[in-house]
Amino acid sequence: MTTWVDGAEGSLFDVDNLPYGVFSLAGEEPRVGVRIGELVLDLAPVAAAEMLDAHHVFQERSLNALMAEGRLVRESVRRWITGLLTDETERDLVEPHLVPVADVTLHLPVEVADYVDFYASLDHASNVGRIFRPDQEPLLPNWRHLPVGYHGRAGTVVASGTPVTRPSGQHRGDDGPTYGPSTRLDIEAELGFVVGTPSELGSPVAYGAFADHVFGVVGLNDWSARDIQAWEYVPLGPFLGKSFATSISAWVTPLEALDAAWVDLPGQDPTPLPYLGPGDVQGLDIDVEVLLNGTVVSRPPYRTMYWSPAQMLAHITVNGASLRTGDLYASGTISGPERDQRGSFLELSWGGTEPFGAELWGDGRTFLEDGDEVVLRYTAPGTAGGRIALGEVSGVVEPARV
Amino acid sequence: MTTWVDGAEGSLFDVDNLPYGVFSLAGEEPRVGVRIGELVLDLAPVAAAEMLDAHHVFQERSLNALMAEGRLVRESVRRWITGLLTDETERDLVEPHLVPVADVTLHLPVEVADYVDFYASLDHASNVGRIFRPDQEPLLPNWRHLPVGYHGRAGTVVASGTPVTRPSGQHRGDDGPTYGPSTRLDIEAELGFVVGTPSELGSPVAYGAFADHVFGVVGLNDWSARDIQAWEYVPLGPFLGKSFATSISAWVTPLEALDAAWVDLPGQDPTPLPYLGPGDVQGLDIDVEVLLNGTVVSRPPYRTMYWSPAQMLAHITVNGASLRTGDLYASGTISGPERDQRGSFLELSWGGTEPFGAELWGDGRTFLEDGDEVVLRYTAPGTAGGRIALGEVSGVVEPARV
Repeated sequence: MTTWVDGAEGSLFDVDNLPYGVFSLAGEEPRVGVRIGELVLDLAPVAAAEMLDAHHVFQERSLNALMAEGRLVRESVRRWITGLLTDETERDLVEPHLVPVADVTLHLPVEVADYVDFYASLDHASNVGRIFRPDQEPLLPNWRHLPVGYHGRAGTVVASGTPVTRPSGQHRGDDGPTYGPSTRLDIEAELGFVVGTPSELGSPVAYGAFADHVFGVVGLNDWSARDIQAWEYVPLGPFLGKSFATSISAWVTPLEALDAAWVDLPGQDPTPLPYLGPGDVQGLDIDVEVLLNGTVVSRPPYRTMYWSPAQMLAHITVNGASLRTGDLYASGTISGPERDQRGSFLELSWGGTEPFGAELWGDGRTFLEDGDEVVLRYTAPGTAGGRIALGEVSGVVEPARV
Repeated sequence: MTTWVDGAEGSLFDVDNLPYGVFSLAGEEPRVGVRIGELVLDLAPVAAAEMLDAHHVFQERSLNALMAEGRLVRESVRRWITGLLTDETERDLVEPHLVPVADVTLHLPVEVADYVDFYASLDHASNVGRIFRPDQEPLLPNWRHLPVGYHGRAGTVVASGTPVTRPSGQHRGDDGPTYGPSTRLDIEAELGFVVGTPSELGSPVAYGAFADHVFGVVGLNDWSARDIQAWEYVPLGPFLGKSFATSISAWVTPLEALDAAWVDLPGQDPTPLPYLGPGDVQGLDIDVEVLLNGTVVSRPPYRTMYWSPAQMLAHITVNGASLRTGDLYASGTISGPERDQRGSFLELSWGGTEPFGAELWGDGRTFLEDGDEVVLRYTAPGTAGGRIALGEVSGVVEPARV
């Protein structure tokens, strides 16, 4: 199918992509839009004009109401939008409601309910184990049996473009702990999954029900203060080392746009327990680029992950924990086996001991400096044979306030 | 001041208490009420009749709108309600809107934003360290320097009275992990603090601003599956061992009702860093009772805690993390130095090795059995010289569904 929208055909935001976001024009309320090429389609007035039952969900300040409608509505809304943008006879109705993406403000697209972060990359977990516990086996005994994860802070999930203030806190010092700005501020390049359809407390969500519950995918940067984290994290896990900010893309890519991106993951040994769906472990063939001040410093490949998106969802709910619309769960740092595929500065600089990028920045770099801009970009195979872009995730580091 | 409400004077819900909750009558919408004696005052119609500016906040299905109004409104609403219930001339207006608590359904009082759980009892942390790591120092190096905490699952916080389904999941087995219902289901008797006034991302909330941000206090049971927790918790902390259910009281006790309950905590050595407000470490003199199937099995005293409520709040935000209305943070298990003051079955039974309550139940008890009912009761000194009750927290264990 070909779109009539000028400039969209063959772009990373062609009609086989169509991510959703929440946008506003100056002086107007935020509402739901869909991206096509370099334009945003204002869905509410078009839906109202066509007397679509669900038109009210496009007038909301988040995607939650749309996402809560469930898989069938998600699929039918996508078919409806695809028709609008490919059928020349719709052009007169639709074209007045296309606005340049450069003219809009993009907002946090999801009202985040609970945020869970996993640790699903074998290469990342192995690297971190070697850096933090050099004398031990890098992987802890549970790692190959379950997707290790924890809850993060939902209230500090922010939209791409939001500046990130360098956090202060306690770090280990030579004479006991000290207080001050983090000196080991880092990123984690991740992929996030947004839940649309909720589930009932007490009832696990089966592995095979992934597409019934997950609405779509976001890019995600789990900003991390390694010095705060290293001191606080035993025995209850990361807390303030992570909770100051987590950035997600302004665009949520619906699952259907990724139909051509599913690939077999590398494989799991030992075979996991039945609730984790052994034997059918598919991930997404998404390429990630990590840019520091405009230069690509790493290219983590999502297809190298160990635990799959469906396994992570089944694990979250195996104890009967319920899902809510707006729940967000993320992969953990995406790192491939090569040095230039590592998704954190901790790994790229091997704990700060091996500066990277000396060819670009003289002495090279280890952790983030004030004023640094990090951008994460994501692309995947589209259903029309080309590639599509997921929303990018950007943030500039601002100095600590204390 | 004396209330005109029959039966309230001298009770645990006298006019110096006045906790808020969300209630409904058959066939009606949930709305905000305040408890006096064995009655609930339906606030919305009284506020509307008196043309109170804020009357709409009492028509909501949670306390969040009321709590978001901030400290001054919290205080002035309390004065207004106190006047209604003590001034005989208000009786004709108010009395038609008092309904027996036995006739109402109580709901989850707060729409929980983020839920943080601490580990603030020295006796509890020491006991757990001795049970889980018998050959090591019971306290980890960071424990006396910061209130160790982590994020829990906000979406599975339930109201007192909600049955708790025994969770299933992975446990360590002799030949690798196995899947099945938890066989070490436990409670944690805790106190929870509910945030009313939000804070700005990037700006820490100072120790002294506790009463500006915290609206009130709830009883809290952090149900825990010890076998699931023990296998999953390294290195990122507890996850599925906790996330299946956390019960809170249906009544939220406003801070002002606890004005007479503040006491010096036992003391802190070493002196914590300045952001944790050293030298002014006050806690609440709240007595807790843990009842198993109607019998008191433990009496944890909150005044023995190591870290204070204000320190926990300052710690949550020291990295710039923002607060939202509805944020809930809890103390962690309250355990005193005596055996009959331990706030978890893990400690009461010393890891399952020393059954307790043999005088009551033959062989004694270790962890929870299906059908068990746990009730947590809380009392504190009231401002009128007697004692007040916080809301109780109850739950019955239902069998695993798989």
